[in-house]
Amino acid sequence: MEFTFEDISGAEIARRTAVYEPLTAAVRDLIDAVIRTEVNDDALSDAQGAISDVVALLREKQIPGSYGVRHTADRQGMAWGNAVIGLRNAIAPPLTVIRAGVDDPVVAWAEVTLGAAYEGPPGHVHGGVVSLLFDQLLGEAASMDGLPNYTGTLTVRYLRPTPLGRIRMEAQTPERSGRKKIARATMTVDGVRTAEAEGVFIVPRGMSTLRPLSDGND
Amino acid sequence: MEFTFEDISGAEIARRTAVYEPLTAAVRDLIDAVIRTEVNDDALSDAQGAISDVVALLREKQIPGSYGVRHTADRQGMAWGNAVIGLRNAIAPPLTVIRAGVDDPVVAWAEVTLGAAYEGPPGHVHGGVVSLLFDQLLGEAASMDGLPNYTGTLTVRYLRPTPLGRIRMEAQTPERSGRKKIARATMTVDGVRTAEAEGVFIVPRGMSTLRPLSDGND
Repeated sequence: MEFTFEDISGAEIARRTAVYEPLTAAVRDLIDAVIRTEVNDDALSDAQGAISDVVALLREKQIPGSYGVRHTADRQGMAWGNAVIGLRNAIAPPLTVIRAGVDDPVVAWAEVTLGAAYEGPPGHVHGGVVSLLFDQLLGEAASMDGLPNYTGTLTVRYLRPTPLGRIRMEAQTPERSGRKKIARATMTVDGVRTAEAEGVFIVPRGMSTLRPLSDGND
Repeated sequence: MEFTFEDISGAEIARRTAVYEPLTAAVRDLIDAVIRTEVNDDALSDAQGAISDVVALLREKQIPGSYGVRHTADRQGMAWGNAVIGLRNAIAPPLTVIRAGVDDPVVAWAEVTLGAAYEGPPGHVHGGVVSLLFDQLLGEAASMDGLPNYTGTLTVRYLRPTPLGRIRMEAQTPERSGRKKIARATMTVDGVRTAEAEGVFIVPRGMSTLRPLSDGND
């Protein structure tokens, strides 16, 4: 599993963000429109043709595989292809995880609006989408101590259906015991808890006694 | 939570499928292209403009909210907006769950190819996507007995990273005890198990003694 080093400046990251963020937002809008449209077959056919033309244009020059996870010389991470937080991935809501501090009772949190594309039961968030978002938040919360880890187990308890719309997620300070870290988080809608999750994360062998390189907030 | 009754024929479903399936496939292709493209800023800007035009076209007539879950008079379900299996949802891979039979040791299975849009760790499937797919498969396996149920708990164990590409998932015959059903499933890549999951499903109060209306295969 290789992380990619890309030697670019903060200014170049800002330039790329300004270009890709609205492009990806337009694709998110398109995903929603394709689910909800009621225009006639001719219009749908025109839409399909126009989309295929855009795809051909974008594919004139492209990387051979997936985006990967890149980082710059000053350790700024670019997980722009990530399915949950990716700046260039229209599947991602995207979730923006706000990191408080490792000593804060809520170490990390996120708020996001989930529309028609995240539906499972009528008018409600797909249970799998709930778990998808928890996996990302818990993973970020667990790695805030600066020690790398991989997910061992994810458990999600569904307390009630989560309506589509604005949701809030909060992760508590993870517990650590040897090579194991346990992180917990909740999902709420208008202050009502709809789901909670627990992730067990494992620090790779030989790394648990390392002194963290940073405060984990990078 | 309301399911929508839509009184259309099998022929009309086939007609709509023929129109929406390639349209949604084009949007999936676009999601992938936006992640992987390396064309210049002018081309990206042109792409964004063209996509916005398509969105405007599709939004000329649309339903006010999410797609919901619809079914026809002969009980054919249309979860076309579903985030995992939705025919009109470009976020969905889509997963097509094949139902064997309730007495088959593997009651339901699915194979799907996951590309750049489903990435978490470099070159690998996002752990949350693994849980997203399990949630859908387990829910379908659990409801094959014809008794409705909602998800109580989902637990996913990650045995090793799942590489992007073709994956296979299999669900075993669920155990049932009173109002509780327990379903289990595995994920494999080239025959190697990468993850396994367990879902606890609850039959709504007052429904567990109902005789199933069908064999659950509709």
